[in-house]
Amino acid sequence: MPIDQSNMLGVLDDFPKQCKDALSLPKGITVKGEVTSIVVCGMGGSAIGGDLLKLYLSSSKIPVFVSRDYKVPEFVDEYTLVFTVSYSGNTEETLSSFHDAKKKNAKIIALTTGGELSKLAGKIIKVPAGLQPRAAIGYLFFPMVGVLYNSNMVDIKNDDLNEMLTLLNDKENLKTQAQELAKKIQGKTPIIYSSELLKPVAYRWQTQINENAKYPAFHSAFPEMNHNEINSVSAMDRNRFTAILLKDPNDHPRIKKRMEICKQVMERKIDVNEVEVKGSSLLARMFSTIYLGDYTSYYLAMRERVDPTPVQVIEWLKKQL
Amino acid sequence: MPIDQSNMLGVLDDFPKQCKDALSLPKGITVKGEVTSIVVCGMGGSAIGGDLLKLYLSSSKIPVFVSRDYKVPEFVDEYTLVFTVSYSGNTEETLSSFHDAKKKNAKIIALTTGGELSKLAGKIIKVPAGLQPRAAIGYLFFPMVGVLYNSNMVDIKNDDLNEMLTLLNDKENLKTQAQELAKKIQGKTPIIYSSELLKPVAYRWQTQINENAKYPAFHSAFPEMNHNEINSVSAMDRNRFTAILLKDPNDHPRIKKRMEICKQVMERKIDVNEVEVKGSSLLARMFSTIYLGDYTSYYLAMRERVDPTPVQVIEWLKKQL
Repeated sequence: MPIDQSNMLGVLDDFPKQCKDALSLPKGITVKGEVTSIVVCGMGGSAIGGDLLKLYLSSSKIPVFVSRDYKVPEFVDEYTLVFTVSYSGNTEETLSSFHDAKKKNAKIIALTTGGELSKLAGKIIKVPAGLQPRAAIGYLFFPMVGVLYNSNMVDIKNDDLNEMLTLLNDKENLKTQAQELAKKIQGKTPIIYSSELLKPVAYRWQTQINENAKYPAFHSAFPEMNHNEINSVSAMDRNRFTAILLKDPNDHPRIKKRMEICKQVMERKIDVNEVEVKGSSLLARMFSTIYLGDYTSYYLAMRERVDPTPVQVIEWLKKQL
Repeated sequence: MPIDQSNMLGVLDDFPKQCKDALSLPKGITVKGEVTSIVVCGMGGSAIGGDLLKLYLSSSKIPVFVSRDYKVPEFVDEYTLVFTVSYSGNTEETLSSFHDAKKKNAKIIALTTGGELSKLAGKIIKVPAGLQPRAAIGYLFFPMVGVLYNSNMVDIKNDDLNEMLTLLNDKENLKTQAQELAKKIQGKTPIIYSSELLKPVAYRWQTQINENAKYPAFHSAFPEMNHNEINSVSAMDRNRFTAILLKDPNDHPRIKKRMEICKQVMERKIDVNEVEVKGSSLLARMFSTIYLGDYTSYYLAMRERVDPTPVQVIEWLKKQL
């Protein structure tokens, strides 16, 4: 019996195609009227797309909030574009947030494969079903960008998309690197560090390790960790913890320097695995690094001999609720 | 030679008075003109005040962002109130953000003891010097609320303040509870869980343990952790990790139920230490729980035989930069 019974590897291998297909899903869907802010409501795999939208729009004038709760922020009104994202369409927190956003007269667009959400929402982007939500990150991110593009709120450069796809399609290299990382992680608790900008990517690494490998992991960001967490390294040891440092060539020069110095501090106590973020466009940097993390979590699952696809604890928990 | 050479315990014991005094610091300081959003720039101990402001204003219509980076978000403009918070006044990230906010014509108010920031900023709230920034959380939070109160942007109820001070002054009970918690944490890595609303409080527990006890700790929130992290518990063991569950009577009923069920899941693998959040007003709940975490980190430092006050790694790092 193979460990990867539901073929997570095959799903991962299809990821570049998923990203490419996902952009055309919101065909013809636009937002009308003034938008002063964007709120993305979702949980887990469906919320990370919101974090990534916030990151993608970090150089735009429009504020983006991600809401992982039973209601939307109090400031939401008719000028707020609210994406309610639930892969299953039945996530109770997201359904509850949908009703709250509706009461506040927000402009709502739902991203879902179906479920209750598809019955409630007026504007829906239907995404292909049959995946684990976390494996559908392309479907749960690019359609939001597509809506904003359709509404002239954001530009998407073909060059950026092509650069991203080229990096994603370099799978053999990614897999080799992922296998090496998985080997270094096993037996220790990894802490994934990035710049504040790429924090959603570091969080994605954590949650993929949690869900695919059923394995503890944590994440944190520079420069903030320099002001507190770095003090805790003295009580760590290399048999228990290991650091993964996501180094982005576009990081602020002072962040690069901070990472360099912290690496020295950390290496006295724990191993530091450096990952060079690849690509020049933000889109390429985000998704090539996410993809490496996804493969790393997959190979860690193989080493731990756990099937990456089922998340039995989450399913059990839903039933208890 | 005592371990607590700089008397962190005395500083902690004075915390209720600090909170009381802090509200009157921005006497006469107001914001003029329309404010559509608030951004708090700061790092470490100076940034947590921003997280707490966001939490405190969670039921108001005004969006609050906390920025822990070298620049402010792109949307900042003349309608944004930017608090630049740096206890020393020399935090390089905050100074850099100050210049960025100025370029964007934001309404800036600085909170600082002095330093470079006090020379640059037009509107300054001077806070008493001589503390570790993390021990000055009262001085770094309440003056922002005071400015908003002076500007008729927020109401502060005397009853809430009094409830908070009553709980903070119940020090003997807090200390007993903190000593017990410190004992249960020692030798393990604590993960502090709260509702999404109280996440800044859980983060404060983490960073106080990191800085005062020089000890690893992590934090996370419900319901989000139900969608990913809970899967990693199966690979944890009670000799390595321990959970601290901050249970707020005001939590959403579904969050309460989620915590109850997750406790059962976690207890198979790790100990779960439940902390009942006290108080009915948000202010009382926030600060009484923070205070318990502060004392816990102090007693953990005593058990670990490290002086809670100096943070040598941070100081060394600043010199290397």
